[in-house]
Amino acid sequence: MVAHPAQINENDDAASVMQRIRKMIGTGAMSNALTIRPARSEDDDAIWAILEPTFRAGETYPIPRDISRSEALGYWHTPGHSVFVAERDGRIVGTYYMKANNRGGGAHVANCGYMVAAGAMGGGIARAMCTHSLDEARARGFTAMQFNFVIASNERAVKLWQACGFEIVGTLPGAFLHPSRRAVDAYVMFRTL
Amino acid sequence: MVAHPAQINENDDAASVMQRIRKMIGTGAMSNALTIRPARSEDDDAIWAILEPTFRAGETYPIPRDISRSEALGYWHTPGHSVFVAERDGRIVGTYYMKANNRGGGAHVANCGYMVAAGAMGGGIARAMCTHSLDEARARGFTAMQFNFVIASNERAVKLWQACGFEIVGTLPGAFLHPSRRAVDAYVMFRTL
Repeated sequence: MVAHPAQINENDDAASVMQRIRKMIGTGAMSNALTIRPARSEDDDAIWAILEPTFRAGETYPIPRDISRSEALGYWHTPGHSVFVAERDGRIVGTYYMKANNRGGGAHVANCGYMVAAGAMGGGIARAMCTHSLDEARARGFTAMQFNFVIASNERAVKLWQACGFEIVGTLPGAFLHPSRRAVDAYVMFRTL
Repeated sequence: MVAHPAQINENDDAASVMQRIRKMIGTGAMSNALTIRPARSEDDDAIWAILEPTFRAGETYPIPRDISRSEALGYWHTPGHSVFVAERDGRIVGTYYMKANNRGGGAHVANCGYMVAAGAMGGGIARAMCTHSLDEARARGFTAMQFNFVIASNERAVKLWQACGFEIVGTLPGAFLHPSRRAVDAYVMFRTL
């Protein structure tokens, strides 16, 4: 049985341990840590690289499929939005925005939109961003979070948000015209914080 | 039994009929015709006179109670909103906006916000504006209308929208902090056109 490369034994010398650590970092064996941080202006290219295929597909957001780069980034960075990015190995693999869903008497409920890079789906990035956003929302004093328009055919998202504690509190019948031109329902999802 | 002032008998002469009509118009007896038309820039004072007490009360819209005139008018006239006014006797007694509730695959669902002048409540103005908006939405090609945030304690509005064919399709628990600081539910209401 071959020892796991990360295993350190009591008779290993420091130099060989360091060498193995460097090797692991180099091969990616220790590189799956996800960092979520506020977006900076220099992240716009990476954010657009995530937004573009999703908006072009038109299956998950009620946004025009032919939206331009500047309009899409303007939407993602709408005044009042806080934008975050998820970084892995120095590459931005996801982004989300947070905002108050309403003002005045509705300002205690947060709203977020999340997006994962096309090639990075299924790696827990959306879940990590959601968890991060729930903590961030609590820290900002929000006491609930609401998603206004979760498209029912996006079953993966619906299940993930349910796993993150959200409930379907409303169903908007046929409120989304999928690119197949099939009218599908959209869900309103909600959870307290 | 006194004849109704609007009654015209076969032996009335035209002059006396006209005199009575003028008198009725003067006293308001025939003055309940409501005209609903697109707002013009010179209507802003009248619109603000309607918005201000409603926003200050903070009981029906999730808008800051201390919103300024310019910010409130900017909100009502948000780009993409079509604003209408309801006029009676040359006085603006109500206003509403219409917009697409979403873009892209959600652009077939309209959204409206209605407001009636404080002194003109209970006169059928909200119902008339809603009926007008449903016709207007159909004419614009919308196939459904959605209200995103009808505050449950605003029972009069909830009942009126139900009478206008809307159904409660979602309940947002405690999503509105009423000025009494009581958290009340908000409803998502929807109807097809």
